[in-house]
Amino acid sequence: MVPFVYDIPTRVYFGENQLTHLGQELSRFGKSVLFVYGGGSIRKTGLYDTVMSAIRESGLHAAELSGVEPNPKVDSVRRGVELCRENDVDVILAVGGGSVLDCGKYISAAVFHDGDPWDLIEKNMPTPKTLPVVTIVTMAATGSEMDTVAVISNMEKKLKIGFNRPQLRPAVSFLDPTLTYSVSRYQTACGCADIFSHAVETYFNDKGMYMVDRFFEGIMRTVVKYASVAMEKPDDYEARANIMWAASWAINGLGRIMQPYAWSCHGLEHQLSAFYDITHGLGLAILTPRWMEHILSEDTAPRLRDLGVSVFDVDPGLPLMDGAKAAIEATKKWLFETLGLASTLTEIGIGDEHIPEMAHSAVTLGLKRAFIPLTDQDAEDIFRASL
Amino acid sequence: MVPFVYDIPTRVYFGENQLTHLGQELSRFGKSVLFVYGGGSIRKTGLYDTVMSAIRESGLHAAELSGVEPNPKVDSVRRGVELCRENDVDVILAVGGGSVLDCGKYISAAVFHDGDPWDLIEKNMPTPKTLPVVTIVTMAATGSEMDTVAVISNMEKKLKIGFNRPQLRPAVSFLDPTLTYSVSRYQTACGCADIFSHAVETYFNDKGMYMVDRFFEGIMRTVVKYASVAMEKPDDYEARANIMWAASWAINGLGRIMQPYAWSCHGLEHQLSAFYDITHGLGLAILTPRWMEHILSEDTAPRLRDLGVSVFDVDPGLPLMDGAKAAIEATKKWLFETLGLASTLTEIGIGDEHIPEMAHSAVTLGLKRAFIPLTDQDAEDIFRASL
Repeated sequence: MVPFVYDIPTRVYFGENQLTHLGQELSRFGKSVLFVYGGGSIRKTGLYDTVMSAIRESGLHAAELSGVEPNPKVDSVRRGVELCRENDVDVILAVGGGSVLDCGKYISAAVFHDGDPWDLIEKNMPTPKTLPVVTIVTMAATGSEMDTVAVISNMEKKLKIGFNRPQLRPAVSFLDPTLTYSVSRYQTACGCADIFSHAVETYFNDKGMYMVDRFFEGIMRTVVKYASVAMEKPDDYEARANIMWAASWAINGLGRIMQPYAWSCHGLEHQLSAFYDITHGLGLAILTPRWMEHILSEDTAPRLRDLGVSVFDVDPGLPLMDGAKAAIEATKKWLFETLGLASTLTEIGIGDEHIPEMAHSAVTLGLKRAFIPLTDQDAEDIFRASL
Repeated sequence: MVPFVYDIPTRVYFGENQLTHLGQELSRFGKSVLFVYGGGSIRKTGLYDTVMSAIRESGLHAAELSGVEPNPKVDSVRRGVELCRENDVDVILAVGGGSVLDCGKYISAAVFHDGDPWDLIEKNMPTPKTLPVVTIVTMAATGSEMDTVAVISNMEKKLKIGFNRPQLRPAVSFLDPTLTYSVSRYQTACGCADIFSHAVETYFNDKGMYMVDRFFEGIMRTVVKYASVAMEKPDDYEARANIMWAASWAINGLGRIMQPYAWSCHGLEHQLSAFYDITHGLGLAILTPRWMEHILSEDTAPRLRDLGVSVFDVDPGLPLMDGAKAAIEATKKWLFETLGLASTLTEIGIGDEHIPEMAHSAVTLGLKRAFIPLTDQDAEDIFRASL
């Protein structure tokens, strides 16, 4: 067990009608806000108006960065940095799913860098100064509202990279489960696959701590229990609330701080998104069980079996290898039958054309430093098994 | 599920040798430290010297408040407040178990009150201003290192009361499991009973959230698993670390923030400590299973059964009432056989002489507002069942 520093100062307003505190929280940081959002959905749901009213009523000024895309691109960051400088912005308000939040978080650091924003990633630069970030979450998935990561894509360079700095953790996040009622059945499924994957990556990392392992089993069990409820009944508060809080805890650092190792499925998936711009949670759903199959051995079987028993009610009396295999089958069944996600890359139009390139890039960027280290050949095998 | 604000900014340095960061953390708050501790044990273990070296090497000044007693008395707080004023103290460093930490936390608020420190409790005063508190934990039990409560006793008035203010949460806490190697077998058992009880109180509060319930089952299971390990092998790092982190999470607010109800067994136990000055964890161990038996009904049986299944491996196939009863028996067996704690008040010299008085006081102070509300008669019955 490695020593660690637990330091998660994000203040979270959780529940319905908590946005009444938005103006007061933004005002703590200054007068000028950069309001970052995606497409038009927050206008349709009325959230845009709620936010603008809060900003006006608190006597704040807002510049707007709209149109932030899924798998946010460095171009959006560049536009955001310009707006911050033109408007002397004091605080960034990111309203949306993980992509919008990541874009806002990256801007908060890039605004203090004189060169191009991509430099931060490319040159692995420190970020001694950042603007405070406030978030309003409209989709439970990435956990970006409470974590230290911003994943940014550079399509010219075919790179999608997670930039991780403690200073990127949002200062305040608003989690209102009712704001996720409008998330589609498909996006709900993808979000739940993403949360599940974060927990799996944490669970299959360093030996960690018994208590924390139990917490992560709880997170996985929660997502498995409530994903189908939210898909069937989008306005089920209990389901949306549990999924939302699970999303935050799957990645906020509670488990991760004791882990020196890179995340495997995320490393592989970032390649798919960089080459094909697919939905992150869908890529993870396809890859995760194939990764499990690939790493299955006498060494890893006990942990896979534990996952099966605690999350999917696999019979604890099964022989070790059978229990581990049953866990993988249960994972597949949940992802591909219950959630109804595409089960192969072929189904979503991805062939084998870039596999060696993607495998090499994933391994170079981190997978050789995974808990179960992967070679180029391992990564290729997992991609091919996912076809 | 009620809305809540999650806001736990305590920075925790967890693991061996983390005290190398002590000087730097204290220096963030100023130059003058009030060093609060209990009896002589930190001198014997060398911790006193480690702390004084860190203070000296960082160019800080320290005043010392020593001799803080178990169930800390308001007299110690009074001495601490005087020392703060005489030495123009900037930060309080509390080194010890929960009693020392609570004393330091209460001083941090009382120093800004002109009248007698007991006024804060008696008049239920706000604490708009407090000194920052840094803690070093030498016994895993109360979770005071990450929570907002200070429990203070007034023996003249026969009162032991938990004072709860967000401003009392420590700024920084050092949790080094090796510092708990010297905790005796008996105190380890009492500490684990305390942690278990915090989790039980949270688990039997408002309906809460599915995910958070799973976390609290994890906390209980962790304590049950590792208590006997630490008792047999006091320097088992894995056991001490898990117990230590479980202590913090059982009470830091993660579960509690969604609970509008008072804690039952704690309300009863505070009466025992106020009248007889017994060890808090021991009082909780004796009372908790009797409270479970008293509240057992068709309504509460499902939750008791769940506790049994998830924490003590009670057979999930048992009929509901049998499962609930098996959970209570397993709790008793763990507390009184595995931990070896006294199982009755009689064994520790407590008779029925103050029962009506204690029951009335506990109910008045909060138990009528418990999740399962208790009357004076209920409280008397639980005390009598514990004789």
